[in-house]
Amino acid sequence: MSTQFYLGIIGVGGVGTAFLQQLARLPEAPKLILLARSTQTLLSPTPTYTPGIPAAEWKTASATPDLTKTGALSPEEIAKYLSSAPGRAILVDNTSDPALAASYPIFLRAGVSIVTPNKKGFSSDLSLFREIFQSAIRGNALVYHESTVGAGLPVISTLRDLTSTGDEVTRIEGVFSGTLSFLFNTFAPVGGSGAGKKWSEVVAEAKELGYTEPDPRDDLNGMDVARKLTILARLVGLEVQTPDSFPVESLIPKELQGLDSSAEGAKTFMERLGEFDAQMTDIKESAEKEGKVVRFVGSVDVPKKEVRVGLQKFDQDSAIAGLKGSDNIISFYTKRYGSNPLIIQGAGAGGDVTAMGVTSDLLKVMQRLR
Amino acid sequence: MSTQFYLGIIGVGGVGTAFLQQLARLPEAPKLILLARSTQTLLSPTPTYTPGIPAAEWKTASATPDLTKTGALSPEEIAKYLSSAPGRAILVDNTSDPALAASYPIFLRAGVSIVTPNKKGFSSDLSLFREIFQSAIRGNALVYHESTVGAGLPVISTLRDLTSTGDEVTRIEGVFSGTLSFLFNTFAPVGGSGAGKKWSEVVAEAKELGYTEPDPRDDLNGMDVARKLTILARLVGLEVQTPDSFPVESLIPKELQGLDSSAEGAKTFMERLGEFDAQMTDIKESAEKEGKVVRFVGSVDVPKKEVRVGLQKFDQDSAIAGLKGSDNIISFYTKRYGSNPLIIQGAGAGGDVTAMGVTSDLLKVMQRLR
Repeated sequence: MSTQFYLGIIGVGGVGTAFLQQLARLPEAPKLILLARSTQTLLSPTPTYTPGIPAAEWKTASATPDLTKTGALSPEEIAKYLSSAPGRAILVDNTSDPALAASYPIFLRAGVSIVTPNKKGFSSDLSLFREIFQSAIRGNALVYHESTVGAGLPVISTLRDLTSTGDEVTRIEGVFSGTLSFLFNTFAPVGGSGAGKKWSEVVAEAKELGYTEPDPRDDLNGMDVARKLTILARLVGLEVQTPDSFPVESLIPKELQGLDSSAEGAKTFMERLGEFDAQMTDIKESAEKEGKVVRFVGSVDVPKKEVRVGLQKFDQDSAIAGLKGSDNIISFYTKRYGSNPLIIQGAGAGGDVTAMGVTSDLLKVMQRLR
Repeated sequence: MSTQFYLGIIGVGGVGTAFLQQLARLPEAPKLILLARSTQTLLSPTPTYTPGIPAAEWKTASATPDLTKTGALSPEEIAKYLSSAPGRAILVDNTSDPALAASYPIFLRAGVSIVTPNKKGFSSDLSLFREIFQSAIRGNALVYHESTVGAGLPVISTLRDLTSTGDEVTRIEGVFSGTLSFLFNTFAPVGGSGAGKKWSEVVAEAKELGYTEPDPRDDLNGMDVARKLTILARLVGLEVQTPDSFPVESLIPKELQGLDSSAEGAKTFMERLGEFDAQMTDIKESAEKEGKVVRFVGSVDVPKKEVRVGLQKFDQDSAIAGLKGSDNIISFYTKRYGSNPLIIQGAGAGGDVTAMGVTSDLLKVMQRLR
């Protein structure tokens, strides 16, 4: 009943900071003993793993003399440190680092559970995905990753509940990117053109509002959505090798795909995007002629084993067409739910709601390991 | 790691039957040792609690000579039988019996966990609600009741995730009855009168399709919705004494409220309901004049501590207005989610989806007690 939990956190960006705030307010928080950012690692001294790092004052904690400070540690070193703690250890990975994700098996085999919003471990090579869950079984550890799809929305947990109770999921479909949701809700709202802004203007506005990645091409290339669909498809049993082993429509015009990935390339991209506005206007107007609107969606057709990411037309009175702001919507069609899907909708991006998925996963892991 | 789980089930109605089917297909099912219906109880013989009752052949299992058959047992007797099993015991209550729900504390104090879609324990007197959760702590047992609101939809679990991670829920609102959803989606569809059926005709049609309770007054009096709202309000911390301690609008015309609750009373009710169609037509048309539609909803306003159940007007392009069939929709407004709520939508009634919530809860209880 009185298992002591020891927590390591890697990453103090937007999600990491929000997570630390939520952690500081938990009534029964685990003991924070490792906090790592890219260049610095803060540790509770061994062998006592005491004192813990105060989550509420993590910014100034590195000045505390009784905590250990080092540079970056390797995954092996961190796994050894955490698994030697005198209780159950959990690592929260709040980065989007593919190298760290590739090391999850090291942690799991050592009995360290993983909680993370980092999509990389679950959406890269299928072999890594499998190794992660096999390592968890071997190490008697748990892996929770609710926030890899739809941030704090209960997407992964609902999908697991459906499959674990024997329902047959036939189709998953939805808007999985807050950025692309905002772009199309603004560019092609229900009821016609509205303000009639051009595509490049809408993208520029979204970038200014902070709704896109610093380089908007990271949203427009569709790869973030492709990674989420890869995760969902694998959870219903499809063997998706990588996130580019199925059709992903990029919204980066062909002529601009050669620009390099530097900040300079991003600048040129934004300057030249307007040259291709006519293409997007055509797509929008062709949908309007059919009484529909265009949206950027992802779908998994389970019986056909097809995963797709790209533009699609929707009836104006459909739930997808009616989305507001930067909301996500995810529809699960299953045998039990019949013709009307089980739908989950709401903010699918943002530090607080993403961190909520992480905190909620952490509580579930603690409940199960208690 | 190899905790043995012993399961007792009470109730083999629509949900109970669907649950037994799902249980029979679970890869790691608990051992079924008690199956009780109103007049008969089937038990695995003590002290070995072997053999188990085959979930797949439960209908014919009472003919098996090596199982024990008795009449109805008291809650105390069942609790003693289950808690003496050589492992962790779980009781699934698939009835809607208030007396059984009032005995949950007896089971929980004896260490028997409870999984149930029965609303009575959580929506009757506040003192029972509190005693249930206090008894669970004392007995080191768990209580899961996802299917008490929205059937298998992840409503209770999502609300618990929001509150346990420190979000501030400000408002909960939605359509919580599949029956009333169907009635209003048919009677007052978006876009005007449609087929133009009278209210009493729509109710009669729903009754024939099996969408209402055998006595439709059990849906129209709003009490089922009031019980669900009572549960949600209590989970966000409001001290709701009983499900009739807040305003609940009944759709039973005043003039018919004196009819007795017999089958004869139900028959007279259905015969006379048409006399009051003009009232419902007025309500519908007054909404249409404002460009709105009328729906039967429940809401919890947390800062104001107000719970309400009744008719309300909604914009035609709102998610509530756009509901289809007999779907439920539940919107959570919270501090983190801001102006756009977290929304869950889908079938909120039916044996299979209700049983799914029960099965999913059972798996979670087993994961936590392992």
